[in-house]
Amino acid sequence: MSALATAPAPAAAPARPAAKPYRLAAHPGRPATRPVRAGDLVFGGEAIVVIAGPCSVESREQILDVAHAVRAAGATVLRGGAFKPRTSPYDFQGLGETGLRYLAEARERTGLAIITEVMDSEDVDLVAGYADILQIGSRNMQAFKLLQRAARTGLPIMLKRGLQATIREWLLAAEYVLAAGNDRLILCERGIRTFDAEYTRNCLDLNAVPVVKHESHLPVVVDPSHGTGHTHLIAPMAAAALAAGADALMIEVHPDPERALSDGKQSLTPDAFADLMAGLRPRAHALGRTL
Amino acid sequence: MSALATAPAPAAAPARPAAKPYRLAAHPGRPATRPVRAGDLVFGGEAIVVIAGPCSVESREQILDVAHAVRAAGATVLRGGAFKPRTSPYDFQGLGETGLRYLAEARERTGLAIITEVMDSEDVDLVAGYADILQIGSRNMQAFKLLQRAARTGLPIMLKRGLQATIREWLLAAEYVLAAGNDRLILCERGIRTFDAEYTRNCLDLNAVPVVKHESHLPVVVDPSHGTGHTHLIAPMAAAALAAGADALMIEVHPDPERALSDGKQSLTPDAFADLMAGLRPRAHALGRTL
Amino acid sequence: MSALATAPAPAAAPARPAAKPYRLAAHPGRPATRPVRAGDLVFGGEAIVVIAGPCSVESREQILDVAHAVRAAGATVLRGGAFKPRTSPYDFQGLGETGLRYLAEARERTGLAIITEVMDSEDVDLVAGYADILQIGSRNMQAFKLLQRAARTGLPIMLKRGLQATIREWLLAAEYVLAAGNDRLILCERGIRTFDAEYTRNCLDLNAVPVVKHESHLPVVVDPSHGTGHTHLIAPMAAAALAAGADALMIEVHPDPERALSDGKQSLTPDAFADLMAGLRPRAHALGRTL
Amino acid sequence: MSALATAPAPAAAPARPAAKPYRLAAHPGRPATRPVRAGDLVFGGEAIVVIAGPCSVESREQILDVAHAVRAAGATVLRGGAFKPRTSPYDFQGLGETGLRYLAEARERTGLAIITEVMDSEDVDLVAGYADILQIGSRNMQAFKLLQRAARTGLPIMLKRGLQATIREWLLAAEYVLAAGNDRLILCERGIRTFDAEYTRNCLDLNAVPVVKHESHLPVVVDPSHGTGHTHLIAPMAAAALAAGADALMIEVHPDPERALSDGKQSLTPDAFADLMAGLRPRAHALGRTL
Repeated sequence: MSALATAPAPAAAPARPAAKPYRLAAHPGRPATRPVRAGDLVFGGEAIVVIAGPCSVESREQILDVAHAVRAAGATVLRGGAFKPRTSPYDFQGLGETGLRYLAEARERTGLAIITEVMDSEDVDLVAGYADILQIGSRNMQAFKLLQRAARTGLPIMLKRGLQATIREWLLAAEYVLAAGNDRLILCERGIRTFDAEYTRNCLDLNAVPVVKHESHLPVVVDPSHGTGHTHLIAPMAAAALAAGADALMIEVHPDPERALSDGKQSLTPDAFADLMAGLRPRAHALGRTL
Repeated sequence: MSALATAPAPAAAPARPAAKPYRLAAHPGRPATRPVRAGDLVFGGEAIVVIAGPCSVESREQILDVAHAVRAAGATVLRGGAFKPRTSPYDFQGLGETGLRYLAEARERTGLAIITEVMDSEDVDLVAGYADILQIGSRNMQAFKLLQRAARTGLPIMLKRGLQATIREWLLAAEYVLAAGNDRLILCERGIRTFDAEYTRNCLDLNAVPVVKHESHLPVVVDPSHGTGHTHLIAPMAAAALAAGADALMIEVHPDPERALSDGKQSLTPDAFADLMAGLRPRAHALGRTL
Repeated sequence: MSALATAPAPAAAPARPAAKPYRLAAHPGRPATRPVRAGDLVFGGEAIVVIAGPCSVESREQILDVAHAVRAAGATVLRGGAFKPRTSPYDFQGLGETGLRYLAEARERTGLAIITEVMDSEDVDLVAGYADILQIGSRNMQAFKLLQRAARTGLPIMLKRGLQATIREWLLAAEYVLAAGNDRLILCERGIRTFDAEYTRNCLDLNAVPVVKHESHLPVVVDPSHGTGHTHLIAPMAAAALAAGADALMIEVHPDPERALSDGKQSLTPDAFADLMAGLRPRAHALGRTL
Repeated sequence: MSALATAPAPAAAPARPAAKPYRLAAHPGRPATRPVRAGDLVFGGEAIVVIAGPCSVESREQILDVAHAVRAAGATVLRGGAFKPRTSPYDFQGLGETGLRYLAEARERTGLAIITEVMDSEDVDLVAGYADILQIGSRNMQAFKLLQRAARTGLPIMLKRGLQATIREWLLAAEYVLAAGNDRLILCERGIRTFDAEYTRNCLDLNAVPVVKHESHLPVVVDPSHGTGHTHLIAPMAAAALAAGADALMIEVHPDPERALSDGKQSLTPDAFADLMAGLRPRAHALGRTL
């Protein structure tokens, strides 16, 4: 792993105050990142983990198609929402448990690990019965009882940064998971809300990657799909995320983005995803990592 | 130059509407970036240009020392403020014309090109008598008469993005320079203001790099020193900027950062700058560029 | 009720598009606001409703003292958190059900209605057993299942705006409650997060009041305590809220602000609250309302 | 003048640190606001000053018509831009000196004082030859040499808050004017840029009024026209501004808003302006002020 991206020069590093308010999340000193295992996968090791799949599970066929395609291109985790937090109550809300069953079937057929979002405390046991990694979404980053409830399943947790959350708030939300006794926690930067949303849906905040690495031992995933909202920005921002020190990428892939029930504008086709992976592989190698 | 960072896949590129409001700045189609010459230098070519130097010119000795050091490490442009826009009237305001003379002497002794800020229309002729490239600072991005006045000198112009400016406003400010008949224009991303300023002084917005490349033919400089405000974030964000497609970097270097009259916390020592350059060189090569 | 604050001149009102995405929350035409009843209280009628009390229920004595004091000064609803969403897991999290019991006792002794926050779906039945009005807090504005769960209790709901939620998102969150069959819904503006937090904790967005009145039939509460974070700003911003058309105010009052377990800097003493009420009363009358 | 809006209770006021960085702008203690004279007018006295007129001077007839109309309705200062800072170089840039001459004629015929913007140091002497009050616009709030140059004319200065300027930065920009020897300075809140611009062009930040009153002795103008961008929001926000403690209002009025060359959507017709004034007058009286 390159010293450049993840290890600031000792002389330049500001003295760390004696006690951070996020004492379990805080960086205890070198080495920088404490790897988190999820089944056979390791987040925060030499290999960059790639999570790929559709925004929502829409049908059995759709998720199986995508699963085979992203696995062939090198992804090792399948994403897909069964319970979808949607701004409007009139938008597609996900297939619920049916979607979870399709995800489980995709895992069985491809060997991919499954990550999916849990939106509410009352759904934790249900979702935990299917998922390998529980995702806490941006809107729920500070749903503290949900965090604790999810933590107690013992499953690995991926905590997305709230679109309006400061890094301090994100690390303190992480602390809720850690303090509940679950240290299999990874963070996910997915873009913040600023004053400008004309050319990007959100502002993917890559500064957060070296900041979190400096403050904390937690592995960091970057999601350039939600982070930018436009397919033509995914390749450069994914490459930039790796250079900034990201441990994993989360990429939306849909067999037919124009007909996607959600987030079509930011979803790559399976072919475009394969091209992305091919383009990123030498980048990862130049950083001393594999993809 | 790598296709990955700067050239979105044709299939993914959204159709461009017939007429952009910034018609001179707008991207006319491939190739992506139209290089801008400044003396022997080319912004937007294969070679990454590195601009380095102190925030302010503080003394003859200081600027000559830094000039020699950054040149030895591979920089080709020397930065240094003689007229400093400062939030408070009681802060150091720069050495004025004396500072310009020191910069000119540094150019003579090192061969580095000089970039320095012009803050006011009434200073344009004075500053243009010394500088190789005129910098328009963030606070003046929409000082439209200053833009026109600076453009008419015929010198290359570097236009920093305002800390609250949308990308559309930035490109329209660029249009003022182009419409005044000066097409030697480069843009500089230097961090935007968001809701979080605890761990970073500004939020370096790397999304702006591929967005500007997609919208416009103008070369893009990235300034991770102002953009992050902390020395330990400069290396990872500089690497990320290159991966995102930046054509140049602007880095603050000071012989004694702790005694700097401005921006000490974000200034590298000459040694740390040399380390940064050594670390970035293989990164640039992996992207098919030189540094 | 004054036409000035709440009724834009017909000529000036922009044509409303045929269908708003928030079709149940949307303004159906005049009269502007559809009153919401909560026991004997009416939100959105001629009388301004005043909700007052401490941030958190800290002890039986504390809440009973405050309840008597705010009732004497003219408040009709008692606020007090029993389940507190706190940024850090190490901060005081509220007294839970014990706090709810103290609130119920305060109601019994004073006749005040009780509003208190429910943070999680699994707590809805418990909290609904004690509260007269359920509060959904800023951090949970888009916890959609919690909104639906709370709506189904049939109790009046007060939905606080998320601290970086757009007005559209807020109205769509409201739509989740309405679409779940509960039309006893009131909105609460409590300050948004911007780039400046030096002199105010949040930026109380009074523009939201006439905007919501123009877009929707829902009554609007304004919370200048959270909205500004400083006691010396509460009086002028409460007065401004009434002038902008607010139907109710929510004010933090604590018997000993300096010893408060949360939000002391923004809590008024009982005496200062009585002064505030006395100062606001003629203001309300000048607007054709009572307090 | 009402104690409620402008004078926080002594007990509630936080202790002021010994030295503010804006030492000339800082509040020296009671009484709150130090009035500023501009000819016969007083900003910061009992009478609320009303500034009205079009965004841009478009023709002799237009400005004379508006001048007579706003004077009849009770305004005492005429606004109108002759030099217009426009985001695009292809938009109407103002009539320049011709516009200034029309403004001077309007003053002669109506007795209204004239306020108009100066955008650039090189125009200061020209604009000062016509204006009674020099306006520094939002985009130039930190054009420090322009501030100093304008200050030296000795004319009253109205300094608009930058659209993403913190209150501290605004007060420090004010300090540049005061430190240049001109204490006839008034501040103008005109809306800030946030993450939400769907229903309001800007977010009129009324918190700034009591904050500036608490920090400084400078009178404060509020501009609800730019601040909200929509005519139907002007009346409630103007009323709220007075309640928050504003000393003056700035209102855009155009004889034919739909044909305005700039800012038509936020301009009142002369009739609507007369209605606004009639509606505000009892509000001002209820606050112990006149309009």
